[in-house]
Amino acid sequence: MINGSTQLIPHIGYPTEAFRAPMIYNPWFASKQINAIVVPMGVKPKDFASTLTSIFAMTNVRGALITMPHKVEAASLVDSLSVTASIAGACNAIARNPDGSLTGDQFDGIGFVRGLRRKGVELTGARALVAGCGGVGSAIAASLAAAGVDELHLFDLDQQTREHLSQRLRTHYPHLRVVAGSTDPDGFDLVCNATPLGMHDEDPLPFDVSRLAPSTFVGEVVMKREITPLLAAARSRGCRYQIGTDMLFEMIPAYLEFFGFPEATPEELRAVATLQY
Amino acid sequence: MINGSTQLIPHIGYPTEAFRAPMIYNPWFASKQINAIVVPMGVKPKDFASTLTSIFAMTNVRGALITMPHKVEAASLVDSLSVTASIAGACNAIARNPDGSLTGDQFDGIGFVRGLRRKGVELTGARALVAGCGGVGSAIAASLAAAGVDELHLFDLDQQTREHLSQRLRTHYPHLRVVAGSTDPDGFDLVCNATPLGMHDEDPLPFDVSRLAPSTFVGEVVMKREITPLLAAARSRGCRYQIGTDMLFEMIPAYLEFFGFPEATPEELRAVATLQY
Repeated sequence: MINGSTQLIPHIGYPTEAFRAPMIYNPWFASKQINAIVVPMGVKPKDFASTLTSIFAMTNVRGALITMPHKVEAASLVDSLSVTASIAGACNAIARNPDGSLTGDQFDGIGFVRGLRRKGVELTGARALVAGCGGVGSAIAASLAAAGVDELHLFDLDQQTREHLSQRLRTHYPHLRVVAGSTDPDGFDLVCNATPLGMHDEDPLPFDVSRLAPSTFVGEVVMKREITPLLAAARSRGCRYQIGTDMLFEMIPAYLEFFGFPEATPEELRAVATLQY
Repeated sequence: MINGSTQLIPHIGYPTEAFRAPMIYNPWFASKQINAIVVPMGVKPKDFASTLTSIFAMTNVRGALITMPHKVEAASLVDSLSVTASIAGACNAIARNPDGSLTGDQFDGIGFVRGLRRKGVELTGARALVAGCGGVGSAIAASLAAAGVDELHLFDLDQQTREHLSQRLRTHYPHLRVVAGSTDPDGFDLVCNATPLGMHDEDPLPFDVSRLAPSTFVGEVVMKREITPLLAAARSRGCRYQIGTDMLFEMIPAYLEFFGFPEATPEELRAVATLQY
């Protein structure tokens, strides 16, 4: 129940209709009797910078969730960025420090990696292939680097996008082997689809699944359906896999911790969320 | 349940802790399955103007509730004001017109008058005394003028405040007799306490109740308790009266209408509000 003591987590993006966070965070806050809410706020690009200033001047704002199309601009507006957000060149969470300065972070990749760890996937020394070097792919690549993978192969249709990410990874992780990858998943411990392919029925598969070995773990970021065509192919070839919303439910505890809320588990969040698979 | 299609009514003020509106509007929205919420936003005076601009640029903001300490500044920031808000020199509700311009209004006085009407009080031709010429007193005076009272006696410890209100009333209602009043309630059809007196036990009474006739209707704006010392005295002298929250529950349907929501009744609102006496 919202009252004058409710703390706000503005969820800033445009358009707002597809926002998922309110339906996960808010039932969890209610279940824990925490007087806080995630509030969707539709903000157009021209208004974003000034609105962010207004929002963080509010006395009852605890932090903000930033989504499309503002993640890249957000990274340029905060006072400091985590390594992951620096590599991704984007942030999707902002918190205000006690001195009033703003810190930006990015937990998509952490959510992906936490999900893998919970499934027993060994990342130290692993060879990984990430297809898609946009916001979420960059974040996943950064988190895989932080988790100790040995080789990171990156694929993107846009070579410049891939090269920018490669350079940022090499700067922060000089011992990591960063390689220009392909859609061939052969020989990897882990392959991850971080492209939008799989949202629509007519989409091509992001990898050549005929070359997918059963020992390769397959990660997916598409959340529109639980079993995307890629995951269906992976499953039929005997691969272990991770669905898109696993990343989502794994990352939310990291956001909650970033904003200073008590510890949450993905199981608790799934149990109360009105967004489900 | 908040989701990406939820419309916002920011409730802007500082501090926020004593806000009442969320506990009345939000249960009503839920009971009617209207996807809208009143969201408290703590905004300090130095940030108010820029924050108002940011808020009304948001794509899912339906209107805003403005409270202390911003009501007077709000009246200077909108593009047009209702007559009541002009007289009050303050507005506590802002809506965006289809052309993007902002209109300010002020429904405290309308709530007070609607409550009187519902109790069968005849206002046309009445003689009324209003003690307190601040924001709420000004609004009540303006609404009593609009309702057709014949004489309006105004009392305020600050003569200048009273004179400013008197002048604005005379400008908009040239046929109304506006008179400098006193704390003597003798001879009035209606007396209204629009001062904060009655919030604390040690407060003096706003009127000399020994001179209160049983035929005089007594209105109260203090909401901190249901029966203030003034209302207790009025009741013991046989006067009819109106409690502070009657004004509140009567004004909310006017706000909802202003923001373009379906019709509400005070009874419905009282039935679902988690704010009660």
